[in-house]
Amino acid sequence: MVTAGAGGLAIDAGDVRDAARLILGAAVLTPLLEYAPLNDRLGHRVLVKFEGAQHTGSFKFRGAYNRLARLSPAERRAGVVAWSSGNHAQGVAAAARLLGMPATIVMPADAPAVKRANTRALGAAIVPYDRLTGSREEIATALARDRGATLVPSFDDPCVIAGQGTIGLEILAQADAAGARIGRVLVCCGGGGLVAGIATAIKAQAPAIAIHPVEPAAFDDTARSLASGRRETVPADARSICDALLAPSPGALTFPINRALLSAGLTVTDAEVKAAMRYAFSTCKLVTEPGGAVALAAALHGKAPPADGATVIVISGANVDPAEFAAILGENDGM
Amino acid sequence: MVTAGAGGLAIDAGDVRDAARLILGAAVLTPLLEYAPLNDRLGHRVLVKFEGAQHTGSFKFRGAYNRLARLSPAERRAGVVAWSSGNHAQGVAAAARLLGMPATIVMPADAPAVKRANTRALGAAIVPYDRLTGSREEIATALARDRGATLVPSFDDPCVIAGQGTIGLEILAQADAAGARIGRVLVCCGGGGLVAGIATAIKAQAPAIAIHPVEPAAFDDTARSLASGRRETVPADARSICDALLAPSPGALTFPINRALLSAGLTVTDAEVKAAMRYAFSTCKLVTEPGGAVALAAALHGKAPPADGATVIVISGANVDPAEFAAILGENDGM
Repeated sequence: MVTAGAGGLAIDAGDVRDAARLILGAAVLTPLLEYAPLNDRLGHRVLVKFEGAQHTGSFKFRGAYNRLARLSPAERRAGVVAWSSGNHAQGVAAAARLLGMPATIVMPADAPAVKRANTRALGAAIVPYDRLTGSREEIATALARDRGATLVPSFDDPCVIAGQGTIGLEILAQADAAGARIGRVLVCCGGGGLVAGIATAIKAQAPAIAIHPVEPAAFDDTARSLASGRRETVPADARSICDALLAPSPGALTFPINRALLSAGLTVTDAEVKAAMRYAFSTCKLVTEPGGAVALAAALHGKAPPADGATVIVISGANVDPAEFAAILGENDGM
Repeated sequence: MVTAGAGGLAIDAGDVRDAARLILGAAVLTPLLEYAPLNDRLGHRVLVKFEGAQHTGSFKFRGAYNRLARLSPAERRAGVVAWSSGNHAQGVAAAARLLGMPATIVMPADAPAVKRANTRALGAAIVPYDRLTGSREEIATALARDRGATLVPSFDDPCVIAGQGTIGLEILAQADAAGARIGRVLVCCGGGGLVAGIATAIKAQAPAIAIHPVEPAAFDDTARSLASGRRETVPADARSICDALLAPSPGALTFPINRALLSAGLTVTDAEVKAAMRYAFSTCKLVTEPGGAVALAAALHGKAPPADGATVIVISGANVDPAEFAAILGENDGM
């Protein structure tokens, strides 16, 4: 059972350990990889946590499973509803299928085709909406209410945050096994659930490690919120190729955690993200989606302040349409 | 020191264990990954050994390092010469740089640009030749003789075979840690050094595991040689997109090992290889080169006979030009 964390935060490190016990055997223990050219480029050890190898190709399965596995038999029968641009959708659909419950996902009509197709293939029903005119929260909330189903938020939920935090526990254990002393961890940030969970897990054991959220430059709400101390919002006309990171403001539950635990927010341009995707292809031999590559982009483009010890980069997802990936490979802007 | 193996074979399992001790810390312990959709598709557990994460993006670093690290100080000063379409070139270049010795590589003029560029970036000198009219062996042998340098064969060398075999030891340990009982291992086969090394390592500990070599259909020399019992050759006009697997006949040292240890040879078409590369992209989130994807292609297209236990697939390399990869992603032949 997730309890209120220390200092009124939504979760504490014990909740992450609980989540790790619950998802053991259900989630993939993803690899922590190291590449000599990346070490050479940054001048110190760099470790890459590859969540593309997680079920459904992103970290989202962890939080979804940690939420859904705690539902009662009656709640399971009524099913779950979520809204998502794609990765949370797939994570919820996969967890629901594994646990034998129906899932309905409210998805933007312009979500990447691969994310829609995969969500459907996992047995979930999809309700499309127009991202520019509709409110996915209202649609999903109404659906859940009508059916007596459980709404599964994509980041602002204690179980979801704790589930994503299991990545932090794995990073600590895997870096230790690799003989690496971590100086800083770079994590993508949309609504802030992943970085909040990871920070909760890591800071409890190693408070000296700096955790930096990384956002698309046009969606720098968490960076600005960390600087101002209150939840800032990006303009409604903001755009980025990072479809997984388009949350307009930090979460009500995630921001207090992030304000308490994170170092400065970093931002990267779409061009830097594309260059990072090409680097991941050519050097790491890994597929990344735009939102999944922002932490690598920040590292490659020197966005993080100096720190003693190794840099850990979380590659959070790899669900990208083949045509988009091919187009990005074909661009060459000299970065 | 590599000794003659049992029964007059070039190596035995002790040589692979020696190699593992020598390359420990120098080579990457690459991950053994598992994907639920791949398990579902094959109807049993499938484990993917991803050598794309090895130094230089293929398994070749292992054998090269195991050969070069045994050279005397005088031999190291004189340097090494190798011939290769690209992956062995990069493996030798990286090992030579790590060990501080000069390397010269004889490469076909039509080798993938990424492999030539990477070999050069690793500090090796490149001597191009025409693959259809020149003899790379003669050119390299003459170069080595003139310089007093050591020739490093790409597969027909005991140290090289033993070095590649370290993958087999890792597979056994990693599958054990994952609680998997292996039924069969599918390994790409050009000259046969990789599969000979892996078979030597695995058969010594687990003789019931079937090891299948996988070749491009047009380069089925090992499959036919295993069937006939003698070294067969493919026609000189044979062609395949699998640039890493174009050896025209089994090696003099590798074939006796493979004849003694391997199960039937499997073959895949170029179209099946491309479909496997797309599958690795979309489901495994891994970059593969054509020759690196043949074992996955064999598994996906039902080429391996039934076996009890898990299937292990070795993805042996991921050095592919972005333009070629993008073109393959863009094809859709319904496979």
